[in-house]
Amino acid sequence: MNAEIIAVGSELLTPARLDTNSLFLTAQLNDLGIEVVQKTVIGDDRVRLTAIVRTSLDRCQIVILTGGLGPTEDDVTREAVAAALGRELVFHPEIVDAIERRFRRMGRKMAEINKRQAYVIAGAEPLANDNGTAPGQWIEDAGRVVMLLPGPPPELNPMFIRDCLPRLQRLVPPLAIRTLVFRVAGMPESDLDQLISPVYKQYENPVTTILAAPGDIQIHLRARSAAAEEAERLVAELGGRIEPLLGERIYSRNGDPLEVVVGAGLRERSATLSVAESCTGGLLAGRITEVPGSSDYFAGGFLVYSDRMKTDLLGVEPGLLAEHGAASEPVAEAMARGAAHRMGSTFALSVTGVAGPGGGSDSTPVGTVCIGLAHPRGCDTRRFRFLGDRGRVRALAVHTALDILRRKLLQP
Amino acid sequence: MNAEIIAVGSELLTPARLDTNSLFLTAQLNDLGIEVVQKTVIGDDRVRLTAIVRTSLDRCQIVILTGGLGPTEDDVTREAVAAALGRELVFHPEIVDAIERRFRRMGRKMAEINKRQAYVIAGAEPLANDNGTAPGQWIEDAGRVVMLLPGPPPELNPMFIRDCLPRLQRLVPPLAIRTLVFRVAGMPESDLDQLISPVYKQYENPVTTILAAPGDIQIHLRARSAAAEEAERLVAELGGRIEPLLGERIYSRNGDPLEVVVGAGLRERSATLSVAESCTGGLLAGRITEVPGSSDYFAGGFLVYSDRMKTDLLGVEPGLLAEHGAASEPVAEAMARGAAHRMGSTFALSVTGVAGPGGGSDSTPVGTVCIGLAHPRGCDTRRFRFLGDRGRVRALAVHTALDILRRKLLQP
Repeated sequence: MNAEIIAVGSELLTPARLDTNSLFLTAQLNDLGIEVVQKTVIGDDRVRLTAIVRTSLDRCQIVILTGGLGPTEDDVTREAVAAALGRELVFHPEIVDAIERRFRRMGRKMAEINKRQAYVIAGAEPLANDNGTAPGQWIEDAGRVVMLLPGPPPELNPMFIRDCLPRLQRLVPPLAIRTLVFRVAGMPESDLDQLISPVYKQYENPVTTILAAPGDIQIHLRARSAAAEEAERLVAELGGRIEPLLGERIYSRNGDPLEVVVGAGLRERSATLSVAESCTGGLLAGRITEVPGSSDYFAGGFLVYSDRMKTDLLGVEPGLLAEHGAASEPVAEAMARGAAHRMGSTFALSVTGVAGPGGGSDSTPVGTVCIGLAHPRGCDTRRFRFLGDRGRVRALAVHTALDILRRKLLQP
Repeated sequence: MNAEIIAVGSELLTPARLDTNSLFLTAQLNDLGIEVVQKTVIGDDRVRLTAIVRTSLDRCQIVILTGGLGPTEDDVTREAVAAALGRELVFHPEIVDAIERRFRRMGRKMAEINKRQAYVIAGAEPLANDNGTAPGQWIEDAGRVVMLLPGPPPELNPMFIRDCLPRLQRLVPPLAIRTLVFRVAGMPESDLDQLISPVYKQYENPVTTILAAPGDIQIHLRARSAAAEEAERLVAELGGRIEPLLGERIYSRNGDPLEVVVGAGLRERSATLSVAESCTGGLLAGRITEVPGSSDYFAGGFLVYSDRMKTDLLGVEPGLLAEHGAASEPVAEAMARGAAHRMGSTFALSVTGVAGPGGGSDSTPVGTVCIGLAHPRGCDTRRFRFLGDRGRVRALAVHTALDILRRKLLQP
């Protein structure tokens, strides 16, 4: 079964506002095995909304409208859906009574315009609103379902859970859903897709979704079946074929982000970590300490933005800086060793580079980043060239540094 | 002139992702006097997308598609728009060359599937992508405009500004738009709105929009008129009434973020700054160094996550930690003074607190954050209690620390 979500309200078409109700609704619908195939945001325009509802009803079984149920003339959802379905609006005095009671409880008097909210599409079931004045509406029409829900999340969410979910459960066949999430580091999306698409394209079930952020890719497998064991078998089968193609590049099989995986690896070894950051300026440590309880393994570190501070705080020799430049592997090594030594930590990560937009040269162009990892048996360094603006270079440097440590922690 | 925005990508129909490109695009279009009348999110479904593009072209002059320009078979925007317009796709070998050069610069080889990205709709102008592989496309068709733009914001935003904005400016009648942005620190949104809404509600033009993030509010005033002087007068009139209500809480009148304002203040005084971070774990420095050229005034700092490191690296006396606890004003003062002394900087900010979810106590509950500012005439400290989860507490701590320094820099 497929659903479309239509969010109504001119304020949702301004540069400052997003429709977020659709995220809540999508999560609820997916759990029932219902896919959301389209989301639309539209202003308070009755004619346009009527046309859209009509089109949506032509191509899918479930249409959910949010917003536009208020008392003002701008609120056109009731009229537009009635027109799209070719039904009348019927006045329900008992809804006026409920709205009046609500105002009295707040010590206020109902405004006359609130009576507009008591119109219900002929044949619809009104859904009581405990947290606002606008009732919702549930309409079944020739095998299709239309829901009218209020826009504010504190009104919509409980109404959906209490009134819509049980009605939907009666309509859709019970379905077991099993998901598997791989998170992969250090691979561009196109390379990854070329590697695994020949496999996942063979399956319509599980559905495979790939989410890519700089340096970080998530692969979501989602299997559905009437029988739980079958859904489990499907997801395990496809997962078992994808996993060997990616090998060590998979850093998480449960959705955990990289900083959590690295933290768990450190904790397991009772190891500690420190950092020495230049071009990332604190972002690496900021990411490591996003994890609650990271103080168990994160010792701290040094932000050494200038050559002098690299020397004063970490003991990087001035000769080394003069010979190789700050964004070099020898300096990255000296920074990592200096941090590990001064903090007395098991591991130390260092990052030094040119995040841009200024500061590049022919030999060290913008995007050059050197990463060092001091560990109990020595120090590894690597040089990278990341493309993109300052923010992207810094994000890739942080992610890559964490992944270098993760791979080291995999070694015996 | 009206526009519709269509975001393409099945990942945007999952419970975890929202299309945010439309916010950037809406702001840009509104500045040209173009209204966005509908936004649609649709999966990687060629047939459905073709139908939607066709409908959109029937009812408005500008259709912008974002995403679905990648190299995989899932990326169907090119084919769908070509079908909707009844045009062919034409292979452009020079685009393949550009993509190959990009891969070579990264020291990698182009994958064969990237050639799919070199297909351009007949009659379209390809738009070069400096930050990714997918070129954009600009198509004029019977008085209407269709734009195909890549999904990732670092690719879309500069492409729109450089290639689409000037082309649109040629098409729309000139409308003078004048905007004024106040950024305000240290005030909850509801308090701010109560203070200024009696004023801005009196004006339909300028339009006032309020954007709130933790600790940081933006007030956008936008006046439109055929005559530039009239737009200017309108925005100056409303701005002049709002400004005295907010006073020193306004930290920026041109949209600059707090870290840029603080950086400019330091630069003006030829002053330097260092940090000593505990619970923010690098995020404060990370924010300061988001500004290109921040190495001119940012000396560096210390991440002191443990009591021992506060003592070893910053000279915080163990007795002080034992008596007051790490999340205390005396420790914040010792950290700030220690950082300023060791880095030889004019100013030093320190942050120490309990970001949670664990680690709180009756006397120092989760959300307690102490901030110190060492300056040439001494050291100020303040204690805060921020509400929210770990991420929000840390974000508020960073923002508040920057604002404390900003206010100090205002003093003679």
